[in-house]
Amino acid sequence: MGVHPASDTDGTGFDALYGLELSECSDELARGFVAVRDELRQSGGVVHGGVYGAIAEALAVRGTAASVAAVGKLAVGLANQTTVLHPIAQGKIHATATRRHRGRTTWVWEVEMADDRGLLCVASRVTVSVRDP
Amino acid sequence: MGVHPASDTDGTGFDALYGLELSECSDELARGFVAVRDELRQSGGVVHGGVYGAIAEALAVRGTAASVAAVGKLAVGLANQTTVLHPIAQGKIHATATRRHRGRTTWVWEVEMADDRGLLCVASRVTVSVRDP
Amino acid sequence: MGVHPASDTDGTGFDALYGLELSECSDELARGFVAVRDELRQSGGVVHGGVYGAIAEALAVRGTAASVAAVGKLAVGLANQTTVLHPIAQGKIHATATRRHRGRTTWVWEVEMADDRGLLCVASRVTVSVRDP
Amino acid sequence: MGVHPASDTDGTGFDALYGLELSECSDELARGFVAVRDELRQSGGVVHGGVYGAIAEALAVRGTAASVAAVGKLAVGLANQTTVLHPIAQGKIHATATRRHRGRTTWVWEVEMADDRGLLCVASRVTVSVRDP
Repeated sequence: MGVHPASDTDGTGFDALYGLELSECSDELARGFVAVRDELRQSGGVVHGGVYGAIAEALAVRGTAASVAAVGKLAVGLANQTTVLHPIAQGKIHATATRRHRGRTTWVWEVEMADDRGLLCVASRVTVSVRDP
Repeated sequence: MGVHPASDTDGTGFDALYGLELSECSDELARGFVAVRDELRQSGGVVHGGVYGAIAEALAVRGTAASVAAVGKLAVGLANQTTVLHPIAQGKIHATATRRHRGRTTWVWEVEMADDRGLLCVASRVTVSVRDP
Repeated sequence: MGVHPASDTDGTGFDALYGLELSECSDELARGFVAVRDELRQSGGVVHGGVYGAIAEALAVRGTAASVAAVGKLAVGLANQTTVLHPIAQGKIHATATRRHRGRTTWVWEVEMADDRGLLCVASRVTVSVRDP
Repeated sequence: MGVHPASDTDGTGFDALYGLELSECSDELARGFVAVRDELRQSGGVVHGGVYGAIAEALAVRGTAASVAAVGKLAVGLANQTTVLHPIAQGKIHATATRRHRGRTTWVWEVEMADDRGLLCVASRVTVSVRDP
């Protein structure tokens, strides 16, 4: 992602702030996890719903950028639809993003997140726009 | 929001991490803003889409909690649909959440975010679940 | 909408099937209504949720086509997010679509639907793709 | 679905109008198809996006009703998020709904639709509300 290497190499961007650990990233599949800590919680002690949305967005945008950055394009999230099936309160959030559509100007990814027991807790669909910088 | 006062009073939760400043919060209307900084950016220099989703979620959940916490219920985001109309790169993200539906177990909020020029940049709809703790 | 005049002038398309009456249609605002009848109901007697989604889609796509058809482009729905606040059981569904974003390849519309009493019952966001035929 | 048997047995409801053929329906999985015809098209000749939303809604609501109707509850769609990956122009729309979450008051289903070649064309997420009639 040469478009903006700073945020990826020195960890100053949002993904570093909430703690995304990327374990795999291609233009078809991206995986990562986030360790739950107090800073990611909302009232009631469960993970703040915004964290799930951020993870989904990150994997979808990075997976798209894995391909389009090479031709000088920028990947920017257009629509993010995140549904929480079971709130997560502790452990890690394990996320897997699978590309479902690859168009010229829009890509669509499905992202699923599970807790440490493997229970599916969050389902997202992220539409990514491919643009000129 | 007596259910989990810690994250609201001492600023240790996710809203404090990304920097939400709440300026108004009732069960009909919630407003706040976030100052853009490098930590909130993604590749390309624009604000990470996850930040918008987090703001929308926060206002909707806090607005719901403003009412239901008093009767011992917990407000948890169920579905968050965030669409980016224009990416924001600098200044502040000004967000306004308006309650559209108040049911016994689900509330629905519309959230709009503008940049410093007043341009509508993000539109969200957040469905909040009202539960027993 | 010269791209496919047949479905608009002779009423053979889907909008004619479920009974959309278009009262206004520009590239900024589109309005219409549908009279509830048994054919539009689901179990329990309320209007089938698919009807609301169809109305939202129709107004957003037609509003976009009102502009892009003139330059030989086709408007096709990309993402439709419809939330039901109060199910409608009788009377008319009154819908208003307002354009929120006009990009080169994607437009975004917000659509609201009310019942005969003026109560807001449905909120939709539709992202329309502008393509070559 | 004894709550409102009329619309299911004599084919007067919306699903009959657009032509849903249900091939399987349990509280975990529901399948069906719709044959494309002129009445389901929009401008440009492709299937009207509202048809996909209706199919997704129908399978999710019927799958939920398959369980909750037995205890006198009504299943009503709350949120429907439908994304079109590839518009369909002919043949059949083959839909499969898989339950992802079963709560006391809300169920969540993922619905995928393919064309006759087996290409994934539409992805939906439908949140169904379980209510007293």
